[in-house]
Amino acid sequence: MPTPKKTTSKKDYNQLALAVHKKLKGKLEVVSKGSLKTKDDWSTLYTPGVGAVSMHLAKNPKDARLYTIKNNTVAVISDGSAVLGLGNIGALGALPVMEGKCAIFKEMAGVDAFPIVLDTQDTEEIISVVKAIAPTFGGINLEDIAAPKCFVIEERLKKELNIPVIHDDQHGTAIVVLAGLINAAKVVGKKFETLKVVIIGAGAAGRAIALLLKLAGINNVIVTDTKGVIYKSRSGLDGHKRHLSEVTNPEKIQGDVMSAVTGADAVVGVSGPGTIAKAHIEVMAEKAIVFAMANPIPEIMPADALRAGAMVVATGRSDYPNQVNNALAFPGLFRGALDKGINNITDEMKLAVAKKIAGLVKKPTADMIIPPIMTEGLVKAVASAIKK
Amino acid sequence: MPTPKKTTSKKDYNQLALAVHKKLKGKLEVVSKGSLKTKDDWSTLYTPGVGAVSMHLAKNPKDARLYTIKNNTVAVISDGSAVLGLGNIGALGALPVMEGKCAIFKEMAGVDAFPIVLDTQDTEEIISVVKAIAPTFGGINLEDIAAPKCFVIEERLKKELNIPVIHDDQHGTAIVVLAGLINAAKVVGKKFETLKVVIIGAGAAGRAIALLLKLAGINNVIVTDTKGVIYKSRSGLDGHKRHLSEVTNPEKIQGDVMSAVTGADAVVGVSGPGTIAKAHIEVMAEKAIVFAMANPIPEIMPADALRAGAMVVATGRSDYPNQVNNALAFPGLFRGALDKGINNITDEMKLAVAKKIAGLVKKPTADMIIPPIMTEGLVKAVASAIKK
Repeated sequence: MPTPKKTTSKKDYNQLALAVHKKLKGKLEVVSKGSLKTKDDWSTLYTPGVGAVSMHLAKNPKDARLYTIKNNTVAVISDGSAVLGLGNIGALGALPVMEGKCAIFKEMAGVDAFPIVLDTQDTEEIISVVKAIAPTFGGINLEDIAAPKCFVIEERLKKELNIPVIHDDQHGTAIVVLAGLINAAKVVGKKFETLKVVIIGAGAAGRAIALLLKLAGINNVIVTDTKGVIYKSRSGLDGHKRHLSEVTNPEKIQGDVMSAVTGADAVVGVSGPGTIAKAHIEVMAEKAIVFAMANPIPEIMPADALRAGAMVVATGRSDYPNQVNNALAFPGLFRGALDKGINNITDEMKLAVAKKIAGLVKKPTADMIIPPIMTEGLVKAVASAIKK
Repeated sequence: MPTPKKTTSKKDYNQLALAVHKKLKGKLEVVSKGSLKTKDDWSTLYTPGVGAVSMHLAKNPKDARLYTIKNNTVAVISDGSAVLGLGNIGALGALPVMEGKCAIFKEMAGVDAFPIVLDTQDTEEIISVVKAIAPTFGGINLEDIAAPKCFVIEERLKKELNIPVIHDDQHGTAIVVLAGLINAAKVVGKKFETLKVVIIGAGAAGRAIALLLKLAGINNVIVTDTKGVIYKSRSGLDGHKRHLSEVTNPEKIQGDVMSAVTGADAVVGVSGPGTIAKAHIEVMAEKAIVFAMANPIPEIMPADALRAGAMVVATGRSDYPNQVNNALAFPGLFRGALDKGINNITDEMKLAVAKKIAGLVKKPTADMIIPPIMTEGLVKAVASAIKK
């Protein structure tokens, strides 16, 4: 049985982060690719020469992808309504996170990403604003927007814009969970498709994970929320939860988390600390798989999960094995879409990306079902899975 | 009498610009200021460390200027309704111009500027969108938005946002024209305040120039539009033209451009090619000052203006002396505002900036009333004029 890797130094990342952020005064800068040293430079990159480019684009708007930053630029957009595990802390609270995400985009995949944090949390206004600012961008990464409005916002923008739009909290997470589960099934020696998987949490990530696992061939997926198991005839269900009740839980289980996890092969926590107990794991099937992804404090600590009988444990943290890190997916995903002019990230592409990420672990073990973020060739592999 | 400087090589900037833009595929990139090489880097710039910065900003939103890109980032925003001299060519047509402007911001003043082109030309929607995306930015540069809606948009945003907002087509132009006119008065040996100045064109730039010249102490300012001189009792005047009719034209001149320019000391063209004729200059006062700023083809070519008797000629072009270039003003203006936390660019600051720019020409001559864009210390001088 693997023991959780200890952090070698208990650095206080909070204090360090405050100091570094204050020193940097913002983590991004916008630089000119061309030189502006001579009069000719100015006359070419700016007036009068730029006028010819403007006229060309006015007549051939599709060529904006050839002549402007639309070629390689993604907006990272948040309304600050569900930032990390911190909740609704608003636009300015969200900004450092979005800047970090943009830095990762550039560092990992050469994508120019720019953070836009919104002084509105109204669904229709968010949709209008994103549509209005879309011409500059070659893609839209929605981030840290609360459920259920995130579903409406993403769906509408996907339909109404002709660039790729993805809410990373949903699909980035779902892709990496699927990748991990593919390898975890191998480690525990069970057939992937026949796994019984219980998802604790029916928010943005929970819903997306449930739907992607279904799509990947797992039939027996059960989702729980704060009121217990979601089942078809449960009263008061509407919107996305009603939909979940229709496509999950084929055994029509009712009751609490304990009813759901009894005999389950895997439990996936996307809720909050303490929502998975040792008692839950003790009633699961042999060789239980536990994904406890609340951050920074998981639903159950890895040591406890292992003691309760889990064989494979993943978390959202970098100081334990098997970190479910969205950065495994989103940089390569947009890299591929931008390079290939793909305007719609389909479910099939998400599946293909998850399989690619899983395949980067040559010999999965309990401590290695998910490749590390620094894996050579990661972005290229993910990008290659995005194709028409 | 100075002769216009000839361009030494008749390069085709249009073809060159198309080729360079296609090669660059966008003129800007967004790069990370911090390194993301180690796990500690990730844990500091991103999760978990960044959460401490987010929580700090949620509680102390004003500190966003210390910890995020709000510190040094300006949005360059256009709806593409009045791009250069090209007219209403839309968002994508505007994008290369806005990128160029952002490149100049960084190159000249170290300001991180990002272009946002809008898929809407509706006044109220533009205001809503800019307000919604404002939290990321430390300033808003509105650009190439048509009159008269640009006046409403700027006025409202100045009132409703707590960061500096400036429509550069209005105020950048007005500041540089004022700077040039201060020096031109010295060259022709006339008292600045008693100049009679006729402005051809009552759009964004024309209105701003008229108001700034008034503020600088010139009483006798006359504005014309396509219907001729603007005067108080002219029928059909409303909005900004009615206001102009009330504060300009103290001699109550009526009629066409010829009536206005007769005996005038200076004529300022902000309209289009051909709107200033040699005959107009011939009836002006001795030692006439001519600003012909339509781009790329001025209201009257400098050679013709000089032959008709003008003593000082300025244009918007870089291949003649005395280029009225907004880039003399806007980079230093935002540099000063960002550095000093100034949230409102006042008329007094615009006056101070114009005087600073004028003062950079130690001995004004007919060929040198406006300092070249590459003038040492320009941005610093302009920034120093922005103070509470």
